[in-house]
Amino acid sequence: MDEPRYDVVGLGNALVDVIAHADDAFLETHGLDKGTMTLIDAARARELYEAMPAGIEVSGGSCANTMAAFASLGGRGAYVGKVSGDQLGDVFRHDIRAAGVQYDVAVGDRAPTGRCLVLVTPDAQRTMQTYLGASSHLGPGDVDVALVSAARVTYLEGYLWDPPDAKEAFRKAAAHAHRAGRKVALTLSDPFCVDRHRPSFLELIEGAVDILFANEAEILSLYEVRSFEDALQRVRGHCEVAALTRSERGSVIVAGDDVHAIDAEPHVRVIDTTGAGDAYAAGFLYGYTQGRPLAACGRIGGIAAAEVISHFGARPETSLAALVRDRLG
Amino acid sequence: MDEPRYDVVGLGNALVDVIAHADDAFLETHGLDKGTMTLIDAARARELYEAMPAGIEVSGGSCANTMAAFASLGGRGAYVGKVSGDQLGDVFRHDIRAAGVQYDVAVGDRAPTGRCLVLVTPDAQRTMQTYLGASSHLGPGDVDVALVSAARVTYLEGYLWDPPDAKEAFRKAAAHAHRAGRKVALTLSDPFCVDRHRPSFLELIEGAVDILFANEAEILSLYEVRSFEDALQRVRGHCEVAALTRSERGSVIVAGDDVHAIDAEPHVRVIDTTGAGDAYAAGFLYGYTQGRPLAACGRIGGIAAAEVISHFGARPETSLAALVRDRLG
Repeated sequence: MDEPRYDVVGLGNALVDVIAHADDAFLETHGLDKGTMTLIDAARARELYEAMPAGIEVSGGSCANTMAAFASLGGRGAYVGKVSGDQLGDVFRHDIRAAGVQYDVAVGDRAPTGRCLVLVTPDAQRTMQTYLGASSHLGPGDVDVALVSAARVTYLEGYLWDPPDAKEAFRKAAAHAHRAGRKVALTLSDPFCVDRHRPSFLELIEGAVDILFANEAEILSLYEVRSFEDALQRVRGHCEVAALTRSERGSVIVAGDDVHAIDAEPHVRVIDTTGAGDAYAAGFLYGYTQGRPLAACGRIGGIAAAEVISHFGARPETSLAALVRDRLG
Repeated sequence: MDEPRYDVVGLGNALVDVIAHADDAFLETHGLDKGTMTLIDAARARELYEAMPAGIEVSGGSCANTMAAFASLGGRGAYVGKVSGDQLGDVFRHDIRAAGVQYDVAVGDRAPTGRCLVLVTPDAQRTMQTYLGASSHLGPGDVDVALVSAARVTYLEGYLWDPPDAKEAFRKAAAHAHRAGRKVALTLSDPFCVDRHRPSFLELIEGAVDILFANEAEILSLYEVRSFEDALQRVRGHCEVAALTRSERGSVIVAGDDVHAIDAEPHVRVIDTTGAGDAYAAGFLYGYTQGRPLAACGRIGGIAAAEVISHFGARPETSLAALVRDRLG
């Protein structure tokens, strides 16, 4: 087996975020479910955008955010996702490359670049409405087998389970990663996403996922249980490692009989929780691919998440490598 | 004379800002002149964007920023400027309307929506490279005489003097405003812009401008003098009112024999000076159109500028009306 050229290659929906402040009344008026991600079509995206306050545009996409944070930590990452040849596609491409991530653009011309309307309420929670656009046309043909085989870990976002072609891309990437003796990681992305795809997620996790990321709501939804303890017992046998995040209660890492509870970073002024889970996964995977102990991987995840929730937007604004050096030595 | 339907109608270059952090070495490598605005063509814009770090996209344009801040203060404003029917044009249109400004879009199809690449250095200074795109095709045909006649003040940005058709739009708007018995305000925009157009700016200021906005560098450049005192004496006789901004030294307002020195707002942590002058003009014009004394107009300008420089981006993030209520009562 060759020495991997990349630490992590990530596959995800390539989106540009449109972020604005909103109050709870706005969510209610427009029937939006706080804290979750809902898929919308182009017409609904236009209607909702018209109604939204002035915003900022910034590259997003769950897995792309993870890869940008991963590069900021010093990791060697590559990204696979589809944009269109339009202005927002240009923005997405520019930003992920400028962050230091390898990205051979897959350009589709069947729909404009996907966007995610993110509404941040005064409690720092984010509510997301996603028009997938070009990103939904990612298919198995976009998966470069050599790239996947050349990375220690192939990281997949659960949101890819929504568009049908992307699911095939997802399966192909996982299969080739394993064939090359690499690891496969998955994030469950969203409790409603889990709800939409529970049986096939369960099958996937039992058969093809080595490292699982989930927050509390997602893991409870996956196993349809009410207590975190029960979910912990269920996941224990299925993946080599599961990293379960619990917001201000930190995270719990389970690996067979090994269980590590990691405190959240203290003294964080939370401005916008968008991208918290994405950054945690980046930090964890950075530690993992550097061969650090699991508890240290969780700490690095927590440090990365703390940076991202301390400002508007889902990607780090400062060098995560420097932050980790300061905090962990 | 009818009661004006608008307090201020503004004409300017409609631009979307692409804002990123950069260090002094980046400016040097790319031959950029710190703190100024340079016009660039599409090819140079592409080349520079490729080299830039990851950024955020946010609606900009000097006069459009002023109108957004003016609306945030509670003023009734309208805007005239040209975008294209592309994604960035959509963003511009959405944001200025969402800010509460009347905007009947002038859509051009000869070039993409203009953009301004803004590099913010660690000293919070901004360096701007502007590709005018569609905004440069604003012409006299885009000036709605009824709109201009219906506003107490017609506000023009000096940057409009760069594209030839916009200059005609500018002259037409000023003439019709005066014909309707309204006031004409101008901001000099940039010392190099003044340098490019000195003779015609001088003629304009002597003949057609009632309210002039300029910062220290701009007013020194206009009169080619070295001391602020000399510039003050020169401008005194030409405009009804001149509001001259001096960064951390506040502003000076001159109206005939009346001179008011206004301190800058204290305790401001400066993050990004982009839009400081735009916000000052908004605050001043808000006070002016509300019939407040000149010293109060200057204070409101200072309060608006202080909000805008305390964060990334050139438009207010909080209600300026509430801020002014808190500070001035």
